[in-house]
Amino acid sequence: MAGNSFGKIFTLTTFGESHGPAIGGIIDGCPAGLSLDFNAIAREMQRRKPGQSALVTQRKEEDEVSFLSGIFEGKTTGTPIGFLIENTDQKSRDYSHIKNVYRPSHADFTYEKKYGIRDYRGGGRSSARETSCRVVAGAIAKQLLSDIKINAFVSSVGTVYIDKPYEELDFSKTESNPVRCPDEAIAKQMEELIKETRKKGDTVGGTITCVVQNVPIGLGEPVFDKLHAQLGKAMLSINAVKGFEYGSGFCGAKMMGSEHNDIFNPDGTTKTNLSGGIQGGISNGMDIYFRVAFKPVSTLMQKQETIDSQGNPVIAEGKGRHDPCVVPRAVPIVEAMAALVLADFWLLNKIAKLNP
Amino acid sequence: MAGNSFGKIFTLTTFGESHGPAIGGIIDGCPAGLSLDFNAIAREMQRRKPGQSALVTQRKEEDEVSFLSGIFEGKTTGTPIGFLIENTDQKSRDYSHIKNVYRPSHADFTYEKKYGIRDYRGGGRSSARETSCRVVAGAIAKQLLSDIKINAFVSSVGTVYIDKPYEELDFSKTESNPVRCPDEAIAKQMEELIKETRKKGDTVGGTITCVVQNVPIGLGEPVFDKLHAQLGKAMLSINAVKGFEYGSGFCGAKMMGSEHNDIFNPDGTTKTNLSGGIQGGISNGMDIYFRVAFKPVSTLMQKQETIDSQGNPVIAEGKGRHDPCVVPRAVPIVEAMAALVLADFWLLNKIAKLNP
Amino acid sequence: MAGNSFGKIFTLTTFGESHGPAIGGIIDGCPAGLSLDFNAIAREMQRRKPGQSALVTQRKEEDEVSFLSGIFEGKTTGTPIGFLIENTDQKSRDYSHIKNVYRPSHADFTYEKKYGIRDYRGGGRSSARETSCRVVAGAIAKQLLSDIKINAFVSSVGTVYIDKPYEELDFSKTESNPVRCPDEAIAKQMEELIKETRKKGDTVGGTITCVVQNVPIGLGEPVFDKLHAQLGKAMLSINAVKGFEYGSGFCGAKMMGSEHNDIFNPDGTTKTNLSGGIQGGISNGMDIYFRVAFKPVSTLMQKQETIDSQGNPVIAEGKGRHDPCVVPRAVPIVEAMAALVLADFWLLNKIAKLNP
Amino acid sequence: MAGNSFGKIFTLTTFGESHGPAIGGIIDGCPAGLSLDFNAIAREMQRRKPGQSALVTQRKEEDEVSFLSGIFEGKTTGTPIGFLIENTDQKSRDYSHIKNVYRPSHADFTYEKKYGIRDYRGGGRSSARETSCRVVAGAIAKQLLSDIKINAFVSSVGTVYIDKPYEELDFSKTESNPVRCPDEAIAKQMEELIKETRKKGDTVGGTITCVVQNVPIGLGEPVFDKLHAQLGKAMLSINAVKGFEYGSGFCGAKMMGSEHNDIFNPDGTTKTNLSGGIQGGISNGMDIYFRVAFKPVSTLMQKQETIDSQGNPVIAEGKGRHDPCVVPRAVPIVEAMAALVLADFWLLNKIAKLNP
Repeated sequence: MAGNSFGKIFTLTTFGESHGPAIGGIIDGCPAGLSLDFNAIAREMQRRKPGQSALVTQRKEEDEVSFLSGIFEGKTTGTPIGFLIENTDQKSRDYSHIKNVYRPSHADFTYEKKYGIRDYRGGGRSSARETSCRVVAGAIAKQLLSDIKINAFVSSVGTVYIDKPYEELDFSKTESNPVRCPDEAIAKQMEELIKETRKKGDTVGGTITCVVQNVPIGLGEPVFDKLHAQLGKAMLSINAVKGFEYGSGFCGAKMMGSEHNDIFNPDGTTKTNLSGGIQGGISNGMDIYFRVAFKPVSTLMQKQETIDSQGNPVIAEGKGRHDPCVVPRAVPIVEAMAALVLADFWLLNKIAKLNP
Repeated sequence: MAGNSFGKIFTLTTFGESHGPAIGGIIDGCPAGLSLDFNAIAREMQRRKPGQSALVTQRKEEDEVSFLSGIFEGKTTGTPIGFLIENTDQKSRDYSHIKNVYRPSHADFTYEKKYGIRDYRGGGRSSARETSCRVVAGAIAKQLLSDIKINAFVSSVGTVYIDKPYEELDFSKTESNPVRCPDEAIAKQMEELIKETRKKGDTVGGTITCVVQNVPIGLGEPVFDKLHAQLGKAMLSINAVKGFEYGSGFCGAKMMGSEHNDIFNPDGTTKTNLSGGIQGGISNGMDIYFRVAFKPVSTLMQKQETIDSQGNPVIAEGKGRHDPCVVPRAVPIVEAMAALVLADFWLLNKIAKLNP
Repeated sequence: MAGNSFGKIFTLTTFGESHGPAIGGIIDGCPAGLSLDFNAIAREMQRRKPGQSALVTQRKEEDEVSFLSGIFEGKTTGTPIGFLIENTDQKSRDYSHIKNVYRPSHADFTYEKKYGIRDYRGGGRSSARETSCRVVAGAIAKQLLSDIKINAFVSSVGTVYIDKPYEELDFSKTESNPVRCPDEAIAKQMEELIKETRKKGDTVGGTITCVVQNVPIGLGEPVFDKLHAQLGKAMLSINAVKGFEYGSGFCGAKMMGSEHNDIFNPDGTTKTNLSGGIQGGISNGMDIYFRVAFKPVSTLMQKQETIDSQGNPVIAEGKGRHDPCVVPRAVPIVEAMAALVLADFWLLNKIAKLNP
Repeated sequence: MAGNSFGKIFTLTTFGESHGPAIGGIIDGCPAGLSLDFNAIAREMQRRKPGQSALVTQRKEEDEVSFLSGIFEGKTTGTPIGFLIENTDQKSRDYSHIKNVYRPSHADFTYEKKYGIRDYRGGGRSSARETSCRVVAGAIAKQLLSDIKINAFVSSVGTVYIDKPYEELDFSKTESNPVRCPDEAIAKQMEELIKETRKKGDTVGGTITCVVQNVPIGLGEPVFDKLHAQLGKAMLSINAVKGFEYGSGFCGAKMMGSEHNDIFNPDGTTKTNLSGGIQGGISNGMDIYFRVAFKPVSTLMQKQETIDSQGNPVIAEGKGRHDPCVVPRAVPIVEAMAALVLADFWLLNKIAKLNP
């Protein structure tokens, strides 16, 4: 497998299966001299962690990060930051029933066909457990980008959605409810929907919106590494993501140029922001905002017909502890991936011109 | 500027501004021994070329490709393929009026702020002219992937859209009309809309759907380089793209897991295909399909208020020859980028396991 | 710090300081389905380990590798292989005396100037301890390349050298003596020289020769990634290396073309092998051989004048347990790096032509 | 073929065979705002060009560079710099006699085996003609590094060598003689040797020494991308190179630590410089110096036995115009590759710490 590294300068390389002894990663390219706030890192890990509320899986993953290198007396030294998260709650026995089963819409079938071998325990490498490492690295990237504010939130669950522009939301409310929706009335509806869904043993999809504020002008590298292209790749690499749009997005495709163009103010800001803070692949200083679509989780607490590796019909049924809706826990992951993309481009931009 | 290379094994690196003497690129990593059909390459270039119909810009770009290396007696030799496309229709005088003007929703402002200098003639590097090189490389990638069928088409223009599943369309009709929409009745409506839009000096957005058939199982590299993540990046790197979704996409976010899961047939195919041919970031052999949103072109044939580099208010007005709707000409670009992504993963997949 | 990854397909990324809790790495791109011989890995680690004989440092590093991922039921799964080696013998107190001291010809000065901060304990990231991770990855690469034989040995210590062509040596003798020199008479002399050197509190340099046999034709990627260029980089990246030559090497620079050209046999082998098994950057099937120069270790068990970080004169004196000569322990490291280079090119070569 | 790109930030990608219509390259990552001195670039091209003196091949290559992008009003714009050099002297007829012949110690055999197809005209991609593109990019890199002085010179031809330390040489004399040796008495002897060699239809090897002065402290990225490792790779990637050493080099392997360590002065400079300006893979501000070994050119103006692609014995004899000694013309290539390595690390070093 290639593909376990992300970023060009500020890079994250990860390893680990959900049911091995540990997962972890290496951050290379983080500048020296950054004072780390370890509590802030732990807080991000808490946000992603299972078992935080009745809405999410009750699996217990302690998700404590051990930093093994690259930090000295609380500061980054410029050397690679190795870190480890032990899998304290690995219960391999739970997975024996799926040893030869290809669960519908999981990666069981494709991993086995591609590699000829598969660690069937809990999804192995394809488990969302892998995203913990992204949150660690993202938390450090956020500290590097201390002036930039990254706020993601759940903007829809199933057919329940926030119908306000993000400017009318108070992001400080996002963490006030288990759904991570800053509109508290809508949050309640979402919560209801998720609870109902769980009762049925079913799952439901949703979307996350992310708003990035106070971004310096100049981030992003045309032609192929446009800022939104890399953000899109980052988001689409998160488990269960099916779509990405920024600025006007798919709505923009229905519009006329005379409506869509963002007219400049004399100071270089724009009166509207359908561009989503990015023009020609480069940040223009306006808010960057984008939306990410998550499909419903594939593991259902109800019986489904499927096949085994011989092609025989079998019945699959989720056991144990699974999320009926993945989006609340995916909020910190979206923020982390956004931070990784921005940190990389922020460093690259420092060397884009001779006399910055 | 970094960011002018795409791909890991089958790589394309490009250069060129719209109003310099030429644009071009280098394809490295194409396997030796591929017999090239130069007519097929020219056909793809014709599809992207301006001036093909009354619907698109009447700018004349001959878009003749000169291959300078890497090919011997009609076959690739394994060495890098250098190619050149002269800019035969560069009219620098047309652009003097925008020398100091930041056109709304163009890359003028961001390029100047990022690099401190800007080739203002015709958009320079940010011009869609750059995509010619992608079409050259994509045409070669298509020949490498001769068994895989890649069909893109215009699925909406403004609010006019095809309301059938792609399975009911006849892709052989796509090239039968100037809009490149395989549903001929809808194509007519789209054509009307584009003509009206042009009369007003306005522009209109649209979407392109791409269907990839006969894909081998196993393409894509988890975790960060999932097949759809790289496809998303590829599409989002095309000028004017605002969104990407694959399989169920944004609709999937409204669904329940019990509706969304694709149940297996005994042979490993699936009864439905909301996954869009990709599970866990790896192709599963089913059709891959995705949708790409394009904003309306920013250059309008009408007056717009804007600013110059000093922040003074000025009036911008597009001159010359511009597309009122970019999507018909973007169809071959979408196919080219899809081919580049697939070629890269197709080569990588050959070394994913010890005994393939 | 960038630069902690090696390889394009078969990649190794490492982390860790000599006196942190652990060092480790991630191998990405190893094909799935490789049965691992863990004893063979442990043997390679034993060869690099300090304290093996009276000739080398008596520091105790257990160098036990824990594999954390990427392996299932003894086989590689294609997912990244994460591994960890604990630093069981970290004695930070030993290093307090050098906290502000720039030891001569160490990396203390350059790390501090480059990064503005330095983990002074035992050399931190610049310690040769880092090479353990290379040996782990190299041991796996060797298993991937099971047909290729890689034999390195000490060819000189100070002014004592083997004066036979490698063809007259019996590589099975290399491990029979603590110097790792297959010529037993010369080995004795080297051993004497090292013992004398240690008595004086001094250190001595040496060279390692590496012979790679049974290499398939076709490894190496012109132009910039020629096989010997990548081998050279690999060797020069090992601590204390000052030079690299392959085939005729520096001697070749004194020769005439009529002496130097390798005349072909009818079967494509060559009568002589001054090319060192590589022509035009690609292996030609003959033995690859190269020589690597190591400077004497900088840490002396005698007093040296130096400066502290304020520029004040201070006296440095090595304490603890250091190698008087690094080459015997560097033999497995040279082999490991050669294996990493070859594994990468071996995989790349599988996709160099269309119908291999 | 992979491997036609060099560098991480300041990158060069090249294409082209000796007997195609043109060769060329793309420089990506050069910062915007660099005023280019085109005469200086042309001068470097002149230095590499064949036919400059009676000592080198009389082949005429005009080596005029056309810049196609990335430069506006004399300055780099940050966009990729595409350039082209036409092959004005391609005489394909000269090469028909070697169509099926594998010339001894050339790349004919290995290219054909690796790729299954070969452009036999004049060496194709393996021709030293390819190095022109390196000189173009190196000339730009030199201008980026305007404070750093890079001086290469011929330090030996066959058994004739300069026996003084470089500090006693006057680099301004290097270009005063056709051998490019700054010691004029030795230059005369080298010239004699080359003339004699040519008379015999033979060729002779040599070495080039390169001295880099005024290097800022901090260039180079441990662990794998040490400054000298990347310099070594750069040099070993040049045609005909067999060895690389820096600082004390292979001599250092014979020394004792007490002789070899460079003792600090209070200002951080060192009294000696056996380290060659690099400690721990990072420049320490002292002169960087290294030596590169070139084998004698393989093409002889005398008959040699060899084989054809069927394994039949045939006689090969160089025709046309070839260098009896490659080192005089390789001097600017060595400087160019050094400049590329340094430019890349110079840019990377700007983002190595948080507050530079």
